[in-house]
Amino acid sequence: MKFTRFAVNSTVYTGVLKEDVISEISGDMFGEWEYTGTTFSKKDVQLLAPLIPNQIIGIGANYVRKVDELPNELPEIPVFFFKPTSSVIGPDEEIMIPAGIDEVKFESELAVVIGKEAKNVPESAVLDYVFGYTVGNDVTAPQFFHRDGHWTIGKSFDTFTPLGPVIETELDPFSVRVEAKLNNVEKQNSATELMIVPIRKMISYLTNVMTLKPGDVILTGSPVGAEFVKAGDVIHCEIKEIGMLQNTFVAVKE
Amino acid sequence: MKFTRFAVNSTVYTGVLKEDVISEISGDMFGEWEYTGTTFSKKDVQLLAPLIPNQIIGIGANYVRKVDELPNELPEIPVFFFKPTSSVIGPDEEIMIPAGIDEVKFESELAVVIGKEAKNVPESAVLDYVFGYTVGNDVTAPQFFHRDGHWTIGKSFDTFTPLGPVIETELDPFSVRVEAKLNNVEKQNSATELMIVPIRKMISYLTNVMTLKPGDVILTGSPVGAEFVKAGDVIHCEIKEIGMLQNTFVAVKE
Repeated sequence: MKFTRFAVNSTVYTGVLKEDVISEISGDMFGEWEYTGTTFSKKDVQLLAPLIPNQIIGIGANYVRKVDELPNELPEIPVFFFKPTSSVIGPDEEIMIPAGIDEVKFESELAVVIGKEAKNVPESAVLDYVFGYTVGNDVTAPQFFHRDGHWTIGKSFDTFTPLGPVIETELDPFSVRVEAKLNNVEKQNSATELMIVPIRKMISYLTNVMTLKPGDVILTGSPVGAEFVKAGDVIHCEIKEIGMLQNTFVAVKE
Repeated sequence: MKFTRFAVNSTVYTGVLKEDVISEISGDMFGEWEYTGTTFSKKDVQLLAPLIPNQIIGIGANYVRKVDELPNELPEIPVFFFKPTSSVIGPDEEIMIPAGIDEVKFESELAVVIGKEAKNVPESAVLDYVFGYTVGNDVTAPQFFHRDGHWTIGKSFDTFTPLGPVIETELDPFSVRVEAKLNNVEKQNSATELMIVPIRKMISYLTNVMTLKPGDVILTGSPVGAEFVKAGDVIHCEIKEIGMLQNTFVAVKE
């Protein structure tokens, strides 16, 4: 099932997309909801980020190039970081390159949406707490990384977390490829088996630290191939079973 | 005005504290609200964290010991970090020392509560966006800092962000002292003028990166004197004009 948020004449709706028809729903996507009976044609609506996350947690440098590069031992403490929810935008919105720099990086990612409160979850049970999956672009300005290793500012600018186009609840996250095309040239295309810290281990680890909540979004890392981009560049992040997330980079007017 | 959240028989209320009487309010603390007419005696309620933050942003290593140690030049990129909202607890709740380690650090801090959406705010206007102030304890397990400098996990454990006891809206943040007593022995006691990145500059900088929202909490750094503590230790974090935040450290049962 593909959940969407969308706008028609500035009113925001939630719905379920099937082929080109969106059926509006009311209630809590993560709990009790029902169809309202109203439908929209996909071409008549503006798709938004499919949720307003409760929190956004990312993992750093999580892909190898080939399976035989996977390490035998996993890092004891993975590199996790938070991104602010104010950085979220939806499909077709503009990614703003901050004043003072002229390039940023794109990072196409599989984004996991948590559906149930999760604490101390064993790896074998992690998927029971997952609501669904969307595509994320973890836009990054490494120029704003602190020299002591803190990534917070470089990951936090408004518009730096495009999400969408939908939340797919029926995905097998272990059989998909994470792709990115920059100006229609392929830059990233990796199976999720190339993750160094795999999804179950990543989320189990997090729940042993903190209670995850419905609406938390975990960005599971970006395949090898992310590049710097400039104003005017167009990025397509795609996981075929979920959809394609297109955004254009523009420069902030100073 | 002192805003509180509190529980009576498992029901959660919001109210305004005056001397020892809490007057319940309904509505949005940051917007339209009104008194319900119901009052409670402070001694009959359990004070909770005075808000569920939208997001929590901290700043690292932000105090000097004496005014003449203040640097002439501020860091170009301050060390900011996020803490998960799931780490928040209230007065008198227990701080859980994670399994596998036997000590953590306390850090008493002035916590700024944002009341209005804030983007690109000049330093001179920052206080117009502040709703009020509370006391925060930025509990930290440096054993879980990543060796490349990422603090996320070491700051993110459940119970690691005590807040309270109230949000004081009529504080002059530049004329208060941030104190901590460990087992009734003074460990921290500094005027906020000892901040390296002062409040107006800190929040103005953040709003030039990200849109701050009502309910965002900024932990403004901890005075010199934070120490490691063990299970059984009792910490009092205090700013006299706001109140005292007491918590006891306990070990997680493995």
